[in-house]
Amino acid sequence: MKLYDLELSGNCYKVRLFCALAGIPVTLHPVDFMGGEHKTAPFLAMNPLGELPILQDGDVLLRDSQAILVYLATQYGGEAWCPKDPAHLAEVIAWLSTAANNIQHGPADARLIELFGYPLDKASTVAQSDFILPVFEAQLSRHDWLVLNRPTIADIANFPYIALAHQGGISLAAYPAIRQWMTRIQALPNFIGMPAID
Amino acid sequence: MKLYDLELSGNCYKVRLFCALAGIPVTLHPVDFMGGEHKTAPFLAMNPLGELPILQDGDVLLRDSQAILVYLATQYGGEAWCPKDPAHLAEVIAWLSTAANNIQHGPADARLIELFGYPLDKASTVAQSDFILPVFEAQLSRHDWLVLNRPTIADIANFPYIALAHQGGISLAAYPAIRQWMTRIQALPNFIGMPAID
Repeated sequence: MKLYDLELSGNCYKVRLFCALAGIPVTLHPVDFMGGEHKTAPFLAMNPLGELPILQDGDVLLRDSQAILVYLATQYGGEAWCPKDPAHLAEVIAWLSTAANNIQHGPADARLIELFGYPLDKASTVAQSDFILPVFEAQLSRHDWLVLNRPTIADIANFPYIALAHQGGISLAAYPAIRQWMTRIQALPNFIGMPAID
Repeated sequence: MKLYDLELSGNCYKVRLFCALAGIPVTLHPVDFMGGEHKTAPFLAMNPLGELPILQDGDVLLRDSQAILVYLATQYGGEAWCPKDPAHLAEVIAWLSTAANNIQHGPADARLIELFGYPLDKASTVAQSDFILPVFEAQLSRHDWLVLNRPTIADIANFPYIALAHQGGISLAAYPAIRQWMTRIQALPNFIGMPAID
């Protein structure tokens, strides 16, 4: 199984992290992002959005970090990381939507601006962060994990860009429950970090 | 089963549409959106994001239109609308992420600006639309439906705000395959429209 990967991408990291936690062997294929390799024809043929990560597992070729987590968890992880019953599965999916929408356009985009100079609207990333982080804080004040009473891919999908929020100038000082949740994730067996996440 | 609903919301419409297509009985509970009912305490207790739709099915309470589609399809629709095998399920999820991310922040946000005066950045909604609509066009030039060879919740999740794009000033003139796909969706048995979608 091959992951087309960028070390500094939180979306790639969430796949690397999940593979480590779930004990799924994966070969990393580093992509020359600065050189624009992800926008070349062979890569656009794999993912027309021109984004990373991309997962290749035999005949299966997948884009989108949330989708890749669902695939890996349901194909290799049993029910441990992604429940199969419709109601709990849907709860997980709701948090994956939050990762793809609010966390992406909040802390993740803020980091793209500060770290990589993306021409995005900083005020809108701050507003999105101010909107969604209190929702996480409230949820994690009442529960150790986002869904059920155990770590699932809902946590793994949202963790990276929340843990990297400081790189976009988004402070977590007002969110003690989020910080405790991050500590719980970092204490999971076989946890791995990435640059700026120990 | 009760749907907390707003007639003009494309996210609520995608749930109403799916229930109609799949023959799932649902009672609509119209919410006084202009009066801010969705931001009152009872509603925030159901969905801390203060957004619609919200689905209540006995003890099951769900936010997020994508998550609700997954719930309804897996609980009541068998495999017809949402495949269970991990690779195809993940393909569906990738398009749900696209709905929650690119379509939301492209055509859907453009409509929020033009129709409801939301203080969002119009240029960014146009850029997001110009980025993602060609991806749909390419996919739908080669396939009748987004995933597999049949309509799934991937199509239903993305259809509303693409069909409403004109209300945000986003033209589909350059996208004939998208327009043909919309015609196919509108021809599905038991299809229902909403204001501005016949």
